[in-house]
Amino acid sequence: VARSLPHEDIAYLGDTARVPYGTRSPETVRAYAKSNARFLADLGLKALVVACNTASAVALDELAETIAGPVLGVVEPGARAAVEATRTGSIAVLATATTIESGAYSRAMAALDPAVRVTSLACPLFVPLAEEGWTEGDVPKAVAERYLADLAGTGVDTIVLGCTHYPLLAPVIRTAAEGVLDLSPVLVDSAAAVAASLVGQLPSPPERAAGSRGGRRAFYVTDGLPSFRRVAPRFFGQAISDVTLVDVGS
Amino acid sequence: VARSLPHEDIAYLGDTARVPYGTRSPETVRAYAKSNARFLADLGLKALVVACNTASAVALDELAETIAGPVLGVVEPGARAAVEATRTGSIAVLATATTIESGAYSRAMAALDPAVRVTSLACPLFVPLAEEGWTEGDVPKAVAERYLADLAGTGVDTIVLGCTHYPLLAPVIRTAAEGVLDLSPVLVDSAAAVAASLVGQLPSPPERAAGSRGGRRAFYVTDGLPSFRRVAPRFFGQAISDVTLVDVGS
Repeated sequence: VARSLPHEDIAYLGDTARVPYGTRSPETVRAYAKSNARFLADLGLKALVVACNTASAVALDELAETIAGPVLGVVEPGARAAVEATRTGSIAVLATATTIESGAYSRAMAALDPAVRVTSLACPLFVPLAEEGWTEGDVPKAVAERYLADLAGTGVDTIVLGCTHYPLLAPVIRTAAEGVLDLSPVLVDSAAAVAASLVGQLPSPPERAAGSRGGRRAFYVTDGLPSFRRVAPRFFGQAISDVTLVDVGS
Repeated sequence: VARSLPHEDIAYLGDTARVPYGTRSPETVRAYAKSNARFLADLGLKALVVACNTASAVALDELAETIAGPVLGVVEPGARAAVEATRTGSIAVLATATTIESGAYSRAMAALDPAVRVTSLACPLFVPLAEEGWTEGDVPKAVAERYLADLAGTGVDTIVLGCTHYPLLAPVIRTAAEGVLDLSPVLVDSAAAVAASLVGQLPSPPERAAGSRGGRRAFYVTDGLPSFRRVAPRFFGQAISDVTLVDVGS
């Protein structure tokens, strides 16, 4: 999003005090997502991106009224990219337990192409592995092989990385998938699809630039500044120095 | 505790909406622990056990005034059991990042025996492994070997399992430790030590029985009833059918 819209102000909120969302009940994720959205809405937004697959899967409808502008989740763009990419018509979704149990990806894909076959795999350990920085070596290899063993015989040629953390493990996931599938699958990371969708839903570039004060980036977290600073470069590709600790309520 | 005090009523609160604590800042753990303690205090307690190493390590002092009776953490009893068990004077503590960074175990052991040497290892992946139920096989073996490699040459003969989840991985931890240490270490789980300490701090048995309505067990959680019911038998040794979902505030 930052690369696609360099002149827009972007506010990022990481609810580090209450992560991970992927193992919580839909009710709790909805409550947390609403408090986060209220905090962000108070900053004055023209668009809201719910950049968490679990919150997108279970809370998007309830966040739609939070702001006047568009509210985008990451599930629909990722589902669309996968349906467009597959040749065999067999797609795997790797995501958190709550995202898988919601059925959001399966529904989104069926709406786009009822003939697509979807294999859903909950992979909860991928999140703590990425947080620990163990993205290569024996441990992530063993975890990925165990989760992806269920792809045998599915004919899957496209895999959705249905959680923000999973792209960090993409090489390990690819290798494990190649071992089971006898082909090199397309890995779908919805980030690019979401950015493109957001650009399409905002006013045209001149108007965007006029409403902008020059592409400021503001980072907010609800806990753990030191650990956020340590982990952030893995996710953002650069160090984040200006981070503000906030309380978003409950 | 339930086995040691069969006639006492016991209320258990699992803050499943905000776990894991071990990766959060001390400030956030203290805020969560205080809201939990307030909820429990309102039930009318004669004693409070902070059965979480991270909360014991960073929040115990602030919880002391929550109730009129004793407030026990799990760090001091575990430290005491380890200091009593070691023959080489070299002890390892395996715990969450926040517990290790607090230095609580090192301080407690130094207070008991200044000559003891303590090797502290943060093992964050043990919690999600236990939650996932992966307590044996290649993955936990590889994780334990990676964390415990740092014990080489330490002369450690006693290992504190300094997080409530770690005893579920005790066999894997033992095997990995034996490979590094060339001996079979004593594994210290503070549960028994805490129960003994609690029994010692309560009024004598007749008075206890008089104040009791017959050993009721009440379980409260803040989120995720289905997953709690699924995981609970691994921790309690029996199914938990009567669980109440509560909101403890923030």
